[in-house]
Amino acid sequence: MRRVSADHHHHSTLDPDRLARQGFPEVVFCEGKTEVQIIENLAQLARANGRALGSRLDAKRAGAVAAALPEASYDALSRTITVGDPPPQPAPDAPAVAVVCAGTSDLPVAGEAAATLEFLGHPVRRIHDVGVAGIHRLDARFDEIRTAAVTIVVAGMEGALPSVIGGLVGAPVIAVPTSVGYGASFHGLAALLGMLNSCAAGLTVVNIDNGFGAAMAAQRILRSIQTATKP
Amino acid sequence: MRRVSADHHHHSTLDPDRLARQGFPEVVFCEGKTEVQIIENLAQLARANGRALGSRLDAKRAGAVAAALPEASYDALSRTITVGDPPPQPAPDAPAVAVVCAGTSDLPVAGEAAATLEFLGHPVRRIHDVGVAGIHRLDARFDEIRTAAVTIVVAGMEGALPSVIGGLVGAPVIAVPTSVGYGASFHGLAALLGMLNSCAAGLTVVNIDNGFGAAMAAQRILRSIQTATKP
Amino acid sequence: MRRVSADHHHHSTLDPDRLARQGFPEVVFCEGKTEVQIIENLAQLARANGRALGSRLDAKRAGAVAAALPEASYDALSRTITVGDPPPQPAPDAPAVAVVCAGTSDLPVAGEAAATLEFLGHPVRRIHDVGVAGIHRLDARFDEIRTAAVTIVVAGMEGALPSVIGGLVGAPVIAVPTSVGYGASFHGLAALLGMLNSCAAGLTVVNIDNGFGAAMAAQRILRSIQTATKP
Amino acid sequence: MRRVSADHHHHSTLDPDRLARQGFPEVVFCEGKTEVQIIENLAQLARANGRALGSRLDAKRAGAVAAALPEASYDALSRTITVGDPPPQPAPDAPAVAVVCAGTSDLPVAGEAAATLEFLGHPVRRIHDVGVAGIHRLDARFDEIRTAAVTIVVAGMEGALPSVIGGLVGAPVIAVPTSVGYGASFHGLAALLGMLNSCAAGLTVVNIDNGFGAAMAAQRILRSIQTATKP
Amino acid sequence: MRRVSADHHHHSTLDPDRLARQGFPEVVFCEGKTEVQIIENLAQLARANGRALGSRLDAKRAGAVAAALPEASYDALSRTITVGDPPPQPAPDAPAVAVVCAGTSDLPVAGEAAATLEFLGHPVRRIHDVGVAGIHRLDARFDEIRTAAVTIVVAGMEGALPSVIGGLVGAPVIAVPTSVGYGASFHGLAALLGMLNSCAAGLTVVNIDNGFGAAMAAQRILRSIQTATKP
Amino acid sequence: MRRVSADHHHHSTLDPDRLARQGFPEVVFCEGKTEVQIIENLAQLARANGRALGSRLDAKRAGAVAAALPEASYDALSRTITVGDPPPQPAPDAPAVAVVCAGTSDLPVAGEAAATLEFLGHPVRRIHDVGVAGIHRLDARFDEIRTAAVTIVVAGMEGALPSVIGGLVGAPVIAVPTSVGYGASFHGLAALLGMLNSCAAGLTVVNIDNGFGAAMAAQRILRSIQTATKP
Amino acid sequence: MRRVSADHHHHSTLDPDRLARQGFPEVVFCEGKTEVQIIENLAQLARANGRALGSRLDAKRAGAVAAALPEASYDALSRTITVGDPPPQPAPDAPAVAVVCAGTSDLPVAGEAAATLEFLGHPVRRIHDVGVAGIHRLDARFDEIRTAAVTIVVAGMEGALPSVIGGLVGAPVIAVPTSVGYGASFHGLAALLGMLNSCAAGLTVVNIDNGFGAAMAAQRILRSIQTATKP
Amino acid sequence: MRRVSADHHHHSTLDPDRLARQGFPEVVFCEGKTEVQIIENLAQLARANGRALGSRLDAKRAGAVAAALPEASYDALSRTITVGDPPPQPAPDAPAVAVVCAGTSDLPVAGEAAATLEFLGHPVRRIHDVGVAGIHRLDARFDEIRTAAVTIVVAGMEGALPSVIGGLVGAPVIAVPTSVGYGASFHGLAALLGMLNSCAAGLTVVNIDNGFGAAMAAQRILRSIQTATKP
Repeated sequence: MRRVSADHHHHSTLDPDRLARQGFPEVVFCEGKTEVQIIENLAQLARANGRALGSRLDAKRAGAVAAALPEASYDALSRTITVGDPPPQPAPDAPAVAVVCAGTSDLPVAGEAAATLEFLGHPVRRIHDVGVAGIHRLDARFDEIRTAAVTIVVAGMEGALPSVIGGLVGAPVIAVPTSVGYGASFHGLAALLGMLNSCAAGLTVVNIDNGFGAAMAAQRILRSIQTATKP
Repeated sequence: MRRVSADHHHHSTLDPDRLARQGFPEVVFCEGKTEVQIIENLAQLARANGRALGSRLDAKRAGAVAAALPEASYDALSRTITVGDPPPQPAPDAPAVAVVCAGTSDLPVAGEAAATLEFLGHPVRRIHDVGVAGIHRLDARFDEIRTAAVTIVVAGMEGALPSVIGGLVGAPVIAVPTSVGYGASFHGLAALLGMLNSCAAGLTVVNIDNGFGAAMAAQRILRSIQTATKP
Repeated sequence: MRRVSADHHHHSTLDPDRLARQGFPEVVFCEGKTEVQIIENLAQLARANGRALGSRLDAKRAGAVAAALPEASYDALSRTITVGDPPPQPAPDAPAVAVVCAGTSDLPVAGEAAATLEFLGHPVRRIHDVGVAGIHRLDARFDEIRTAAVTIVVAGMEGALPSVIGGLVGAPVIAVPTSVGYGASFHGLAALLGMLNSCAAGLTVVNIDNGFGAAMAAQRILRSIQTATKP
Repeated sequence: MRRVSADHHHHSTLDPDRLARQGFPEVVFCEGKTEVQIIENLAQLARANGRALGSRLDAKRAGAVAAALPEASYDALSRTITVGDPPPQPAPDAPAVAVVCAGTSDLPVAGEAAATLEFLGHPVRRIHDVGVAGIHRLDARFDEIRTAAVTIVVAGMEGALPSVIGGLVGAPVIAVPTSVGYGASFHGLAALLGMLNSCAAGLTVVNIDNGFGAAMAAQRILRSIQTATKP
Repeated sequence: MRRVSADHHHHSTLDPDRLARQGFPEVVFCEGKTEVQIIENLAQLARANGRALGSRLDAKRAGAVAAALPEASYDALSRTITVGDPPPQPAPDAPAVAVVCAGTSDLPVAGEAAATLEFLGHPVRRIHDVGVAGIHRLDARFDEIRTAAVTIVVAGMEGALPSVIGGLVGAPVIAVPTSVGYGASFHGLAALLGMLNSCAAGLTVVNIDNGFGAAMAAQRILRSIQTATKP
Repeated sequence: MRRVSADHHHHSTLDPDRLARQGFPEVVFCEGKTEVQIIENLAQLARANGRALGSRLDAKRAGAVAAALPEASYDALSRTITVGDPPPQPAPDAPAVAVVCAGTSDLPVAGEAAATLEFLGHPVRRIHDVGVAGIHRLDARFDEIRTAAVTIVVAGMEGALPSVIGGLVGAPVIAVPTSVGYGASFHGLAALLGMLNSCAAGLTVVNIDNGFGAAMAAQRILRSIQTATKP
Repeated sequence: MRRVSADHHHHSTLDPDRLARQGFPEVVFCEGKTEVQIIENLAQLARANGRALGSRLDAKRAGAVAAALPEASYDALSRTITVGDPPPQPAPDAPAVAVVCAGTSDLPVAGEAAATLEFLGHPVRRIHDVGVAGIHRLDARFDEIRTAAVTIVVAGMEGALPSVIGGLVGAPVIAVPTSVGYGASFHGLAALLGMLNSCAAGLTVVNIDNGFGAAMAAQRILRSIQTATKP
Repeated sequence: MRRVSADHHHHSTLDPDRLARQGFPEVVFCEGKTEVQIIENLAQLARANGRALGSRLDAKRAGAVAAALPEASYDALSRTITVGDPPPQPAPDAPAVAVVCAGTSDLPVAGEAAATLEFLGHPVRRIHDVGVAGIHRLDARFDEIRTAAVTIVVAGMEGALPSVIGGLVGAPVIAVPTSVGYGASFHGLAALLGMLNSCAAGLTVVNIDNGFGAAMAAQRILRSIQTATKP
């Protein structure tokens, strides 16, 4: 026998130009990466951009990753880690994003969206537990949603909350189906199909459990607003 | 060559005992039957029970069928035909069924449910066009829903309306997905999955476009109420 | 490194008005919740309503949860926990619910339905192992089904039992598909589709493995009966 | 422009040895073939085997096909055509096949199975309209099923009838799902999955609407019986 | 026989407050509506808002509808009809929307998006036939995309174009899968899944063939930009 | 806290009449049963019938089960256990069943079929590793297949072997798809669909991985043969 | 009313460089194009390349298209049209492609592959009706397959033929599933999945009914062979 | 109790003639095999062919397998093991295969393809991390792809990379979808459907994660090239 060795030559090539090209930095998707790869990737991005964000980092590996990096902060609920400088304080009149979720089980996905937006320097309003089965609970928080520049709505099971909110506000609504549910939810398919077929005009949808993607879609909108308002 | 002949020996065997056994008469499902079969079936049931109902009768064949039967009345929207005596007038305090639908395109299915219930002698409240994207329209009609013994909610596309109503009332709510929609509605699958995964506890669901089945489910409930209230 | 901490700020907002609004209390769905969350939720509901029910609580966490709450009782088969006062004794003439299941493997789902109904104070008749492949076994228990106000039928694999019972009785029949099976059962899809396409008119269906939902649907029917029979 | 011509060089190659190799002759599947192709195929097989059978021949083309062939007989319900000599009279003690179907709409598929078996010279017992929703109707015909060498059960919608019969008899039961139904029947998928997941041990299943295949499966069984009983 | 009559009591209730509530007027979805319903709906909206838009109006009914309404203009490719006043001329510096499509067959969906945006008064850049298989064709038009406030990308078959564009620009990209394709495109499912799984961060997706929905999503973004830039 | 207890009241009701009614005894499906339940069930059946068979018994629990029962024999490959008297020696001229499988990974399912048939007293011919990709290997064993009364063909991946064999022999062929494969095999769906669409006339199919069901289907055929050959 | 006009501005942009870039000319996919568009596209390509090919041209429009173009030749079976110069005569030792199909109904797809290859100047061997259910028919033609540089195998229903051939030859085998079949063939899905899961190593697959794509895949291989053999 | 024993009689029959018949040796698929079976299979093939390859060997069992065999080398990333003589050095002008992958997570599948090709003696160019979202990264490596005899493109998520490359080169492109992704990737289905519907003509596709199959497809092409270039 000659050798039994893990391959250590194939690391991912980062895309350092993304910030310049698209206005937002690359983020490290930690699922399926080794601790060493995650640490290297975060360190490299933090060097280039001052700070770095990692998503989908499970609690098991978080300790080792956080210990190896300066100024690292891990949030177990949203499974995100930030490294380096704190994000810039948003301007007082910066357009805000409302992150709304239907149930307790949707919190990790909503948290991923919120953490990503905060990392990018945007003000976030977290509005939880306003599902369709108790639609009256939405009233108390409605003004925060109505005045947001963008609203992200996270919902599992039948995924009806984005339709309700999309019918009430005129600003962009980004719907995030979650895999919360069982049986005929088919791991989020029911929520996904519901959102794609919403009778509220102009809803858009991202992949199941993709809180990060919803935040990036909001980031794109906020960037267009900022471009338009710059003198 | 000997013969080219349509088979005319195989007619369906009706189930005359169903009224005694289950408390409701057999109904003729007209789809896939010839005009002759429909006429024979309706006539036989009308002789046995005084009146008869046919469902899923398309407008093309309705003229010939109605012309062949005494006291026939066809409703093109719900594609139902009734033959024979009018249904008994419901008692003034008879428990009512609210039939709610989300959009104009859901009317045929809602109409099938309503026509079936009226044929069976129950008072029906028809409440239309109160979809989730304009949820405020529900308010004006909510008292009629709140006080009904049973509510049937018919919705296509994302099928969210039953969840909203199911979270507001305590009486039985029967959800009917419709095939209204396109693309990722997959002919009603999106609405069906949405309703099966409703976060409103105790919703029940019938097959896509099955207004008749929803009415029969309501009939079963009304029968249990009547059994309980009989001295 | 600054901190690696589990988020402990996001607890679910309970819905204390549900009992008044809909006639039944909120129930704690334990799957995906931490032991601390479950204990807090059950305690809060027990304080408000005198007693509380938790569903989908696996045996591993049941010990810790039960130990932390007074008057807690856990049933491992149905994975339900009750806390607080025993439910009120049903009146002798209270309408009963028959909970029927097809095979041994369907017992946990049937148990969840029965435990929920008993928690809500309704008399329950448990009828097991009367699957379609040995349809003669149904005869011995048929009178208990025929005289029930509502029948819940739980079945996996091909899910044919609700059709058979639905063709024999006139009272409401709520069908619960289970994920029991393998291969082309596709985790309950076969049973679900079978029940949605039942040739027995007026069957209604809930989500796969949703014994709790079936019980709540029965609760809604029993509430309509009680409303109608109150002087 | 040179030519616009239908290709007329590609005719299907028949398999004249099949009768010797497998004990049954080739049958012409008429769907997707031209009238000329059907006539040629049937004529060639009738010359080789004395008679020939065509399946899935729609009524529109049947007239022309039957007119072109001697001793042709078309049955519109089962969409089958036979050409040539009548099949041999079955021996008085020849093992019989029961062809059972659940509803009127399943008759074309049941008819295809029966016509194929009769063409092959087997005695057939046609038993119709004994669906699960009126299971008591099965009793009157049960002896004919119990004493058959093979039973073919044809059912659409939830496809539960084969399970019931399979639990009552010990002889082979071949289940044929049909595309009868709508909505969540998904063109026969519900019935197919139901039959594959039957709790009756030893059921076998053929493709949706494949009455011909079920007959051929029965033919294979009858052939094994005949082989075993030959001195 | 008493009567065979089409139901003419059930017309759709329009939502006149939508313009005030959400900043955009209701649009008439013509599929599944009668000519009379379409004419009434368009006339009512044109009276309320000065002009009206109808989508999914097939060419067959367009003549009768357009003849009945003043100032009606029908576009056969996008199947849209406009009635009443022309839309306001966009301001010279108004943010523009790029509507990009991959192939000729995607033009109807792209056209629906463009027509809706023009009806709402937004400048539109139509960029066609820049599919992924000839990615070099994108270069010539890239500046128009890079400087747009929002880009809508319409693609059928494998739906890869939004990923490519989403990786090149930082502004919002709304992906519209179309049902263009055959076989394993499953009526647009392949394109839909491709877009939901895009490796370009922050893409959002609407329903298959939903050009109107993409335009409304862009409208929501443009409205947020306008709100932010108003003094 | 009052109690945390596993439910021990619900045991399955066995069907002791099955042997008389259908000609074969009940078999214990061990998956999802506790060791105690399995032991009780096997013991009870062995008392009634002299011997008993259990299927789907994983190796972990097999030791405890076998230790508790007299004359128990466990086969790890097919996951079957037999208890009690050995099966009767088949008569020298008893009709045999060929159990054919395509690949090594299909052996457990083929083994389950073979073990069940041997338990029932039938002679079995085991023919392995004759998959379609090396079709020439079939030749050496073809005579054993050609002369069998029934052939069971077990295959995963594309499931093509039953078509090849079904085109070569005239006796009954029962196809068993297995979940062997990965990716687009979708846990046996590819093989299942392939077998249902076989171009070999008269193939029948059982559920994915259902070796037991295939054996029972063969048992039904052998029983019909025995009935026919009894004087 | 102003105008009802079909859009005539949007024609497809052809890709004239493809021949230089990839070694094969663009082909006109006629489905979904108007007669005018098809004629223009074919004429433009014929001018650029000397000849042109159109695929998926139905017989209805073929007459008008062929009449408008010089040297046009339409083949109704494969639904292809060629315009302009005949293809160059292949060299005597040019590598050949075998196009094999399983059944008569697969001929249009096989024909599309063959016509495309002949248009590109390659020798084609057409081998029909050698399906798996009569595998012995393959023997007579096997030498033509064994000596081909590439083999395209077209099959519907269970799609098993490519596995058999792929296990016998070492040259490239391109599998084309067709939508031939019914019921659980799900419009070619069964054949597609079967081919993707083939146990014959190194099979590749194209989309359902995509004879053109298979020919182009063969063209790519032949081009690599030609590149390698050029001095 | 008599015995609890693992079956040790059923080992797989290897196919020693494959090298002669098809030009490539059999490879051991290790998934689902015991360590003993793997060792025996590899040893037998190494004796016959001088060397042997095993695929899908997880790291846990690799140590024991490698220790038991002379000259064994295990690569953990691609999960492949080679035994015996090193492969022959490719000729300097041997046609090369480019193995391209879109993201870091696709490396194991790309590695399996590359390792298989190297085992077979072909030169391989590994090109990683050139996904569609950063399409500019493709430029730097494009010449290596353009001049390869065959290109294998491995991609998960939306699977768009093969379309882009397929539109740029004229040589064969073999697309390998991977199960990389989450949510609506449905374990690789999204990538698979995307590749099957590619608008780049002549792409071919293998099963999800089937790097080995792609290598074997390339091997078949290289063999045809070698056959053609041999004097």
